[in-house]
Amino acid sequence: MGGAMKRVVIVGAGFAGLNAAKGLGRVGGLEVTLLDERNYHLFQPLLYQVAMAGLSPAEISAPIRGLLSSYRNIRVLCSRATSVDLGGRRVLTDSGAHPYDFLILACGARHAYFGREEWEEHAPGLKTLEQALEVRRRVLTAFEEAEKKPNPQRQQALLTFVVVGGGPTGVELAGAIGEMSRFTLARDFRHIDPKRARVILIEAGPRILPAFPESLALRAVRDLESLGVQVWTSRPVTEVDASGVVVGEERIGSYTTLWAAGVQPSSLNRELGSALDAEGRAIVRPDLSLPGHSEVFVAGDQAHVRGRDGEPLPGLAPVAMQQGRYLSRRIRAELRGEVCPTFAYRDRGKMATIGRSRAICQTPHFQFAGRLAWFAWLLVHIYYLVGFKNRLFVVLQWAWAHLTFRRGARLIVSKEWRFYTPGRP
Amino acid sequence: MGGAMKRVVIVGAGFAGLNAAKGLGRVGGLEVTLLDERNYHLFQPLLYQVAMAGLSPAEISAPIRGLLSSYRNIRVLCSRATSVDLGGRRVLTDSGAHPYDFLILACGARHAYFGREEWEEHAPGLKTLEQALEVRRRVLTAFEEAEKKPNPQRQQALLTFVVVGGGPTGVELAGAIGEMSRFTLARDFRHIDPKRARVILIEAGPRILPAFPESLALRAVRDLESLGVQVWTSRPVTEVDASGVVVGEERIGSYTTLWAAGVQPSSLNRELGSALDAEGRAIVRPDLSLPGHSEVFVAGDQAHVRGRDGEPLPGLAPVAMQQGRYLSRRIRAELRGEVCPTFAYRDRGKMATIGRSRAICQTPHFQFAGRLAWFAWLLVHIYYLVGFKNRLFVVLQWAWAHLTFRRGARLIVSKEWRFYTPGRP
Repeated sequence: MGGAMKRVVIVGAGFAGLNAAKGLGRVGGLEVTLLDERNYHLFQPLLYQVAMAGLSPAEISAPIRGLLSSYRNIRVLCSRATSVDLGGRRVLTDSGAHPYDFLILACGARHAYFGREEWEEHAPGLKTLEQALEVRRRVLTAFEEAEKKPNPQRQQALLTFVVVGGGPTGVELAGAIGEMSRFTLARDFRHIDPKRARVILIEAGPRILPAFPESLALRAVRDLESLGVQVWTSRPVTEVDASGVVVGEERIGSYTTLWAAGVQPSSLNRELGSALDAEGRAIVRPDLSLPGHSEVFVAGDQAHVRGRDGEPLPGLAPVAMQQGRYLSRRIRAELRGEVCPTFAYRDRGKMATIGRSRAICQTPHFQFAGRLAWFAWLLVHIYYLVGFKNRLFVVLQWAWAHLTFRRGARLIVSKEWRFYTPGRP
Repeated sequence: MGGAMKRVVIVGAGFAGLNAAKGLGRVGGLEVTLLDERNYHLFQPLLYQVAMAGLSPAEISAPIRGLLSSYRNIRVLCSRATSVDLGGRRVLTDSGAHPYDFLILACGARHAYFGREEWEEHAPGLKTLEQALEVRRRVLTAFEEAEKKPNPQRQQALLTFVVVGGGPTGVELAGAIGEMSRFTLARDFRHIDPKRARVILIEAGPRILPAFPESLALRAVRDLESLGVQVWTSRPVTEVDASGVVVGEERIGSYTTLWAAGVQPSSLNRELGSALDAEGRAIVRPDLSLPGHSEVFVAGDQAHVRGRDGEPLPGLAPVAMQQGRYLSRRIRAELRGEVCPTFAYRDRGKMATIGRSRAICQTPHFQFAGRLAWFAWLLVHIYYLVGFKNRLFVVLQWAWAHLTFRRGARLIVSKEWRFYTPGRP
């Protein structure tokens, strides 16, 4: 190919894809195509805040075009990748085929229901803005319906919120519902007392937050309980339907069940012809390339990469960001004919927040919890929020919410836009 | 009834209903029930900004409960009024019947398609948040689709935007699309030049903005044309379908048609047994009460009330606000056994904005246009935005957008939240 233009195709504009694209912007001799079904980059770690009416969608997302408009060698296409032709070096999409010299697959993951996909209808997950708005609608609508004086049993089920899965997302959701019912909504109803709402966090494993040290997880349980959240561990959910969940022998009546248990990567993985791990992630080489295809890379939640301790790296934003940046270095090195070292994850720690003023933080060197940890959590998330404008607005929004216990985005927006007649069916 | 509690039922939490409720808050001997299908009050004059991705839904709306939580005699119910039993003095809703001693009907209006309701699918109106998000989705998606290199004819139709109706909403929409294509999106695409987008504003009558003096309307036409908007007058639309509109003999190929022509009030009006005007508004007495029912009042876009000049008052926010406040005075006076003067609209003027820095303003005493008018428009709208928080954020958002030409909410959020697999159909 000599001095010809090299084409890089990146599928997915999440943390991995976006950082890879930025690292390849303005690199001579490179033409980059970034494909994403959505027109925006989503800051997923704050998605639960949209679901809990604390933030608006626009505050945790930014149009991909806007983020990359200064890189003239990058073009963004709002397209869905339907398959990869590894032999022909092309990505097939709903807007035609895109040939590549290098391919980066970073399509992320969605929630997994362990073969019970029919549960999704009754227990939405939290991976997309659409899902976050649906969760918000369900939680807020439950309080509104309960206020209408239904029979006691129905009212009880309306004021019972079940969160399935005790990882960081489940903990953040449960804490936020607890806080909302105890503080934000406390004075707003006349027939119900929102403080009576039950929030139950259900974890199949022996304890919540298994990725954190046990002492921090215990602290999180205490903080959750102070917000009125009941934490049930070693209790796998065996059934989910429209009126509640079954946990072992017990049936919990609830109209609002949220799913935060288990993820599965993009199904594109299945046609790569390479080994997948138990969760479906593609097992890649230490430079993130696909075995047998040194020009194809997989990154982020879609990839199975081992850390220094031999354990697979978790599906966290910092992992995906570092992988994206690494891949841009890796491709630039290859263009210059240089050898690039393999990917090494630099673990700066992890954190989870509980309610409006508590969090737990674990770094490689020390760990802490409480208000200080919450403040650290706040700073880290603001720092990483893409784009100066979003950062500024989120800080202001939070400062306001913190001072007033209000939530700025308490709107129930339905999905139907047509034929709405005010005051009539 | 003697000293018993009097019950006021208000249907609709728009400008009229909300202001009536506030005026009746903390009034002894009164129990107020405010019914609205939505859980938020919407600041409709800025709805076009949500449609044009300048603002987020939460920035122009506020939860009704939050706005009224300090008034302990007001309860808010998120219910749909299905009919009124005038004889039995009850409002029937999807959550049961609500008896009243005084009733205020303020359900607003929706767009009218002059008997061609099937056009709505192809040409959404702009009365609800759902519609605004749908309009946003269509406009942004058109640019994204055009970037995918379709055939020239399809590309041309994708980059043609038709706005039907030359009132303030139509003018604001057309101006905002013109501005967006010429400034906001200018550098973001690689295959298309957004500046090539055609925006056509179609008005059936002889000129746009008929409610304004002709000199101001001419100024608005000039300002629109400077943003690349073509203004067609005396051209009624005779057909609307998925691929364009027909205007007289001419067919305009367009995938994005927006409807801003004509409104019709709530269909509750039809069962009041009182006279309606040509547009379906209930003709009420000078104290806004229904002929034959001095305990029932109609306000806002749903009512036909004559001004001092004998002309019916326009469907504007200030009219509805003043009527709402008047009705609270009217009911308080009746409780005290006093006589209340009839409603008199105090006209402080009207305004419309064109793009990001121009507007036209007309007051009873003088009129002006251009940048100064835009600034006046800005101040007035911020002042009236409900709730201090919203005001602050909207100011910041606008200041930012103005300095950078960016739009903060350029997200295409679809309606479907289920079974989204990244990178796959």
